[in-house]
Amino acid sequence: MELLKKYQILFNKYLEEHPFNGVPEELYEPANYIMKLGGKRLRPAMVLMAYELFKDDLEKALPIAMSVEVFHNFSLVHDDIMDEALVRRGKPTVHEKYSSNTAILSGDVMLVLANQVLFEIQETASILPLIRVFNRTAIEVCEGQQMDMNFETRQNVTIPEYIKMISLKTAALLAACLEMGAIASETDAQNIKNIYNFGLNIGIAFQLQDDILDTFGDPKIFGKKIGGDIIQNKKTFLILKALEVANSDQKNRLSNLMNTPTKDENKKIQEVTELLRQLNIPDLAEQEKEKFKEKAFASLAKINIPESRKLPLTQLAEIIIGRKV
Amino acid sequence: MELLKKYQILFNKYLEEHPFNGVPEELYEPANYIMKLGGKRLRPAMVLMAYELFKDDLEKALPIAMSVEVFHNFSLVHDDIMDEALVRRGKPTVHEKYSSNTAILSGDVMLVLANQVLFEIQETASILPLIRVFNRTAIEVCEGQQMDMNFETRQNVTIPEYIKMISLKTAALLAACLEMGAIASETDAQNIKNIYNFGLNIGIAFQLQDDILDTFGDPKIFGKKIGGDIIQNKKTFLILKALEVANSDQKNRLSNLMNTPTKDENKKIQEVTELLRQLNIPDLAEQEKEKFKEKAFASLAKINIPESRKLPLTQLAEIIIGRKV
Repeated sequence: MELLKKYQILFNKYLEEHPFNGVPEELYEPANYIMKLGGKRLRPAMVLMAYELFKDDLEKALPIAMSVEVFHNFSLVHDDIMDEALVRRGKPTVHEKYSSNTAILSGDVMLVLANQVLFEIQETASILPLIRVFNRTAIEVCEGQQMDMNFETRQNVTIPEYIKMISLKTAALLAACLEMGAIASETDAQNIKNIYNFGLNIGIAFQLQDDILDTFGDPKIFGKKIGGDIIQNKKTFLILKALEVANSDQKNRLSNLMNTPTKDENKKIQEVTELLRQLNIPDLAEQEKEKFKEKAFASLAKINIPESRKLPLTQLAEIIIGRKV
Repeated sequence: MELLKKYQILFNKYLEEHPFNGVPEELYEPANYIMKLGGKRLRPAMVLMAYELFKDDLEKALPIAMSVEVFHNFSLVHDDIMDEALVRRGKPTVHEKYSSNTAILSGDVMLVLANQVLFEIQETASILPLIRVFNRTAIEVCEGQQMDMNFETRQNVTIPEYIKMISLKTAALLAACLEMGAIASETDAQNIKNIYNFGLNIGIAFQLQDDILDTFGDPKIFGKKIGGDIIQNKKTFLILKALEVANSDQKNRLSNLMNTPTKDENKKIQEVTELLRQLNIPDLAEQEKEKFKEKAFASLAKINIPESRKLPLTQLAEIIIGRKV
């Protein structure tokens, strides 16, 4: 993503200059390993972009960019244990490469380090507000993860509950990235609130887009195997919406497909996808996504700065929630 | 322990009035479960005692008491997963009662909550210094736990390394309890440093005492089965000191006993204990403990307040490091 390049270069340089180098190294090496697996550095870029809305010297926001990326990677390390995931960004997950115990403990220390790095901020008056947002967000992400785990065994998940879950699990951190960048820039409370709401709604739209792409995306562009959510019987927006609009025959067919073990995964993906298409789910999901996108941009519009300054953020939002099916 | 009663009552009341009541409850119930398993509330009491050295209105320090107890219980939840422990305080451990995934995630949220509760402190000027100490200590405890895990497979652990490990894993938190209580009381930096050093050295002596009791304690008083460390082949101070003072025959016997699987656990305990006695280890361990106790009390003596105010802390120290073999 060309747009992110400037921020990625800045962040990756900072990361390289600030490796975890405590002892014993068995604790810190897994943390360095996951941090260096790469990724788009979307969250650090969002911190820097939010800071840049209001101020130019964006290297001052780098400790915050570090904080959110360390936190994000902590959550990946622990989530991968819980999901028994073997591969992350084409490489072994931390618990696979080292051990579950190491992954638990290294994750723990990363969670603390993510908080501690905020003390590196030069404007010391911002540290306490930043830690407050960090703690609130970390708690929300845990709550979202627990809701997601609960959904696995629940049969009556509603769409509002699903939106709440993805708000906590995914959108809260994206929103916090923008909020923390804005706090560090020392802009006013109203701007901070608006940029947060922009991030929260973009984050929800981002997850809805991810749901859409997981089933209807172009495998060449999506990167992951299409149909993963269907195989895992995940109650995504697509499925919940389908259960809402389906007639009782279609409902039964969908429930049967989801509750019957199958050996032919491709056939299952094909049948569920076909049913979702019949129910017009791609359009309905796009409409839902659009709703949150509109809310997001309404918040952004309230921020009284030249539109040109908002350009990186609006472009980023368009890209992450608008990739074509 | 009569001495602790006043602090326990105060803390347990506060705990009862401040349960974790977020949603989803599946996340917070395990946190409430472990918090309510009880225990001596030693760490909260130490916070309150340190505060009381300098100020009387000790209910103001209750959020800190909560913070350290939540942190301590977080570490128990995650350590119990790593140790595959089934029982804690006579009840199923969190991962046994719920699941490992729940224990990981509830532990994570407890680690964040332990930090967040510090914002409840009324003297807001103390919050940032308290969070600084909290983060530093949390990192140290993780490092100590990793060192302990490393020692399991290392054959050449030295006594200084062992002291470093228990300083981090056990003593750092006890010292931080006193430090944080003192910070909240707004006493001067020199007093804070001295009370920290008192706690650190008492903490080391406390762990040495625990090592001694695990092998030479009175089973009726100790509470746990005597000889647990020997069965687990733990490289405690007793074993490391024995390897230091033993002649080569004795060294070989001890290594053999530790490295040979046995079906007769009681025989192994008896033989190792006998060898340790021959090597005068109980006395040598007492001397080592005494060394740290003296350091501790030298630091306490530097705090210029009436001795009568120090009485609860000195009595507590005598009790936790001095229980008779």
